[in-house]
Amino acid sequence: MSIRWKLSSVAFTSVRFDDAFWAPRQEINRTVTIPHVHKMCTDTNRFSVFELNYMRRPPFSIVEIFGDSDPAKWIEAVGYSLATHPDPELEALADREIDRIVSAQLPDGYLNTHFQVADPAMRWKNLRDLHEMYCAGHMMEGAVAYYQATGKRKLLDAMMHYADHIAAMFGHGLGQKRGYGGHPEIELALVKMARATGEKRFYELSKYLIDERGQQPHYYDIEARERGEDPAKFWAKNYEYNQSHKPLREQDQAVGHAVRAMYLFSGAADIAHEYDDASLLAACERIWDAMTSRRMYLTGGIGPSHSNEGFTRDYDLPDENAYAETCASIGLVLWCGRMLQFKGEGKYADLLERALYNGTLSGVSLDGSHFYYENPLASLGHHHRVPWFVCPCCPPNVARTIASVGGYFYSTGADAESRDVWVHLYGQNSAKVMVAGREVSLSQRTEYPWNGRVALKIDAGAPTVLTLHMRVPAWCGRWSLKVNGAPVDTTLTNGYVSVRGEWTAQDEIVLDLDMTPHAVYSHPSVRQAVGKVALQRGPLVYCLEGVDHGQTELSRISIDPADIEKMVVEHRADLLGGVSVLRGKGRVADVDGWNGVLYGRQAPRVMETEITAIPYYAWDNREAAGEMRVWLRTN
Amino acid sequence: MSIRWKLSSVAFTSVRFDDAFWAPRQEINRTVTIPHVHKMCTDTNRFSVFELNYMRRPPFSIVEIFGDSDPAKWIEAVGYSLATHPDPELEALADREIDRIVSAQLPDGYLNTHFQVADPAMRWKNLRDLHEMYCAGHMMEGAVAYYQATGKRKLLDAMMHYADHIAAMFGHGLGQKRGYGGHPEIELALVKMARATGEKRFYELSKYLIDERGQQPHYYDIEARERGEDPAKFWAKNYEYNQSHKPLREQDQAVGHAVRAMYLFSGAADIAHEYDDASLLAACERIWDAMTSRRMYLTGGIGPSHSNEGFTRDYDLPDENAYAETCASIGLVLWCGRMLQFKGEGKYADLLERALYNGTLSGVSLDGSHFYYENPLASLGHHHRVPWFVCPCCPPNVARTIASVGGYFYSTGADAESRDVWVHLYGQNSAKVMVAGREVSLSQRTEYPWNGRVALKIDAGAPTVLTLHMRVPAWCGRWSLKVNGAPVDTTLTNGYVSVRGEWTAQDEIVLDLDMTPHAVYSHPSVRQAVGKVALQRGPLVYCLEGVDHGQTELSRISIDPADIEKMVVEHRADLLGGVSVLRGKGRVADVDGWNGVLYGRQAPRVMETEITAIPYYAWDNREAAGEMRVWLRTN
Repeated sequence: MSIRWKLSSVAFTSVRFDDAFWAPRQEINRTVTIPHVHKMCTDTNRFSVFELNYMRRPPFSIVEIFGDSDPAKWIEAVGYSLATHPDPELEALADREIDRIVSAQLPDGYLNTHFQVADPAMRWKNLRDLHEMYCAGHMMEGAVAYYQATGKRKLLDAMMHYADHIAAMFGHGLGQKRGYGGHPEIELALVKMARATGEKRFYELSKYLIDERGQQPHYYDIEARERGEDPAKFWAKNYEYNQSHKPLREQDQAVGHAVRAMYLFSGAADIAHEYDDASLLAACERIWDAMTSRRMYLTGGIGPSHSNEGFTRDYDLPDENAYAETCASIGLVLWCGRMLQFKGEGKYADLLERALYNGTLSGVSLDGSHFYYENPLASLGHHHRVPWFVCPCCPPNVARTIASVGGYFYSTGADAESRDVWVHLYGQNSAKVMVAGREVSLSQRTEYPWNGRVALKIDAGAPTVLTLHMRVPAWCGRWSLKVNGAPVDTTLTNGYVSVRGEWTAQDEIVLDLDMTPHAVYSHPSVRQAVGKVALQRGPLVYCLEGVDHGQTELSRISIDPADIEKMVVEHRADLLGGVSVLRGKGRVADVDGWNGVLYGRQAPRVMETEITAIPYYAWDNREAAGEMRVWLRTN
Repeated sequence: MSIRWKLSSVAFTSVRFDDAFWAPRQEINRTVTIPHVHKMCTDTNRFSVFELNYMRRPPFSIVEIFGDSDPAKWIEAVGYSLATHPDPELEALADREIDRIVSAQLPDGYLNTHFQVADPAMRWKNLRDLHEMYCAGHMMEGAVAYYQATGKRKLLDAMMHYADHIAAMFGHGLGQKRGYGGHPEIELALVKMARATGEKRFYELSKYLIDERGQQPHYYDIEARERGEDPAKFWAKNYEYNQSHKPLREQDQAVGHAVRAMYLFSGAADIAHEYDDASLLAACERIWDAMTSRRMYLTGGIGPSHSNEGFTRDYDLPDENAYAETCASIGLVLWCGRMLQFKGEGKYADLLERALYNGTLSGVSLDGSHFYYENPLASLGHHHRVPWFVCPCCPPNVARTIASVGGYFYSTGADAESRDVWVHLYGQNSAKVMVAGREVSLSQRTEYPWNGRVALKIDAGAPTVLTLHMRVPAWCGRWSLKVNGAPVDTTLTNGYVSVRGEWTAQDEIVLDLDMTPHAVYSHPSVRQAVGKVALQRGPLVYCLEGVDHGQTELSRISIDPADIEKMVVEHRADLLGGVSVLRGKGRVADVDGWNGVLYGRQAPRVMETEITAIPYYAWDNREAAGEMRVWLRTN
């Protein structure tokens, strides 16, 4: 039985937002973030290096070594932006940058400014650490996005040439090295290039890179010895760091560097589909289940540890000093988006939504020009977004994600005869999808994520039979489905309610998702969350900020879980770009009587207080925002 | 009005333990710890360097630079041990080591193996960082201890010579440098030497070092410039690190490196007494109050931070990653012991007892050969005592402290006519004290700290009038005092009950201190302890260990504070060298129903369980002890 995708995701280019949530975010992304990323890349010489006339002396910083990936992600973001919002000036700028980039390419296809100028002797000598394939992958993604938006092939052709160079260098053939990149990324990029060009050889290369990873004798051992190094002295201590400790098909845990893991698993999901590879899908499913049930923040953040930017142990999820890199949440969105297409299982869309609305969106300020690398679940008030990082992977990653977010909303059946449409995410938008060869317009009217009522209209030009699968999120305890005002008797399968009908433009399908604020508890083995509770409403995790609580230390505040459902939902268009806040009864451990006393035999008095919670993604967007905390004591 | 000590502490040489707590500890200290420290100092060339024929190349490790201090503390410990337990073999060994040490002394009195051999050019060039005065101070303490135990003056004479050299180098006179050591220690050592020799010039030098500290122009600025360095580039960032940010009399917070702070304040308390200096005492009192009410662990541990081995901010007391260096708790004991002699205020004895029985004793394994540098209040099971450290300040510090612990138990009135006797600490022992010119024998019969009943007998050879001040610890909620079985009507003043009488050898004074286990709460601003409770019985802080709880994660265990007083106290002579454990009702957040679930809408079920608490000092002394936790959730 084939395990190939039953679903086919609808491209973001077919989805137009006209809501108060995504539309303004995409506008800020286009007008602020994308120019900002270009300026910062320019100021840090990330474009000018392609002129190959810079100086750089050892020891080389790893950040310089993979500097080509940031312009690449900028081009990808520009491509996505142009695809939905033509902008001749931006396109002209991108054309000029692409000219610079392509001008640097060597005749054999190789293109990496660091190794061409600063360190030619190390070209392809340290795949474990030096990110050549990672940079190549990002440039391929940029090339595909730009080609799809503009039809211009210059960068795409250059990247195809580069891919062919890589395919010639690495593989099982005579004279080839059996290498693969230490930072996965190119695997999913090659799949994109194959799909964009129809050239199946790029699938082959991607599959080779996934299959070869972690095989024995271990390529990174061989390669290290060739450099005269002792492989046992690998700075990261073990190959779990880059997920090459064993072949992926034998892995069953999310380990090591979180972004590498997400990019690898995303590429693997693509290849599982393309090659109808059940064992690869099984590995992805196994790892996904293990990770999501033991190694993930409530926000969809992953990788708690600074030391490896990655995974640690089951239930080790510190809140104050969580790493939870923005790029890792984005990578999780990428992976979930692919896993969702196999069978349309709602759990993948649930997590995609969680990671997108919480752990990813928190990575960028509301004004679009400041970024988090780390997304902790509690802060003493000293963690703030900044305009740029020494290692600036996150800002352009956010830019490309927001520009293309529409691509996660819909799927159709992969089978050409299918009359199925899946609605995975909600938000006011119009989409055009092809169903059984016919263009169908879908329109969502909703205030989601602030209100759980979603009204859907379908217009195929003429009455058309199709089956609509609408996701009922796992966070939703009560819901109803009505067609033209009449309740529909339907059941939930795999997290979706399905309704089949012959639809006309007049029909209105209304899914009403109850958004009463609710408590979330963690597995009791998470020691930073046990005995505590988090607030969630709809897809949004909420948090408390000091500024709303007179700067009372938030650790002194607690809540009776019974009061959570009673919290008042107040939409504040004036606040934080427009958010619904939750207001309700809390408690505070009083410092009265503790002046000059550090330890005592009587418990501090607990007083009633009013608490206000804001969406987690919006924290640290006010002056003197102060502390932040997601998990609240219940005593 | 004079602020000089009203009390005069009774030397440890007058106190003999015959109990089950201190007597075996002192025996293990004598037979295991002291030989172990000698062996480790020998193996790490800390004695052989005094032969001045070693090689050491830059960059020099700071640990090598102050290596002379470890043999010095060993000699001090040996002196204390010999004073109460003559041992010709040990004395002969110490004589040989002292010969080696003194042989290294230069004609001008200088003695520091690092600067004599490895780095002569830096002699007295970097008082801020390089620990010359610190090493000198420890050697002076060793010299005094050894002289007092054996009457042998060789090391004492050498150290007097060294002190005179230092006094010639530093001061306000013509051609002198206005320096003082970056790591205080010599200040209190000079006071000891002055007392042992009657030479008041050593008080003068100590007073100069305390007075000059933090004056402007700042000596460490001057000294850095003379080395061609920018003083602003001090690696520790600020002079709070070594308590020289301003003159001590202007300070009001415990800041910087905790051990430095404790040694400085101890020396300052000595000098305040010797010079009847009210402003210096006021500074000590001010800092003591601020520190104990905002910057101290329940165990008497201080200095939560690894980065400066010291103090941070008010109420910043992380439990899992507490630094709380063993030496800092020992330093706190030293300081409290001195503060106590001014007015006999029980709060100083209360904290001395807390720091001694908890934060200090935890620093050494029950077998006497393994040590903690850091004493956290929670552990995931990976923090274990080790035989030695690269920076081995703690092991010999523990050795000298245990050897001389009897010195904290009693005081008499400082006035020669006084007929007062203070009993600060309890434990079965016999002591000989001089009261109004007459030798008085005191004997405590008690099972303290396992039982709060203390029976005291006084034998002065003939009926003698004296006033007995017995401390009622702040941890004690109910107590009674009986003389010959009859209740005595007395009140508590400054933490002591006083009873005056004409005592004969037949009289028995019984103080009964209630030792019902009790809850301790922290100030609610300590975020790692808010909403939690700790268990204490008598002077001992208790903790849970994994091994007693089937290795259930201790963070899943909670306790209803109302159940604490109901806990059963069970003395287990077979366990951990003989301890009273607390057994009672606890609760555990059940993992049932959470298999494969990380976040859910229902709180984990809370089940009743039995919990067993052991004294904090005894943790990590069993194989597979597992996790440890002091603060327990109450919900």
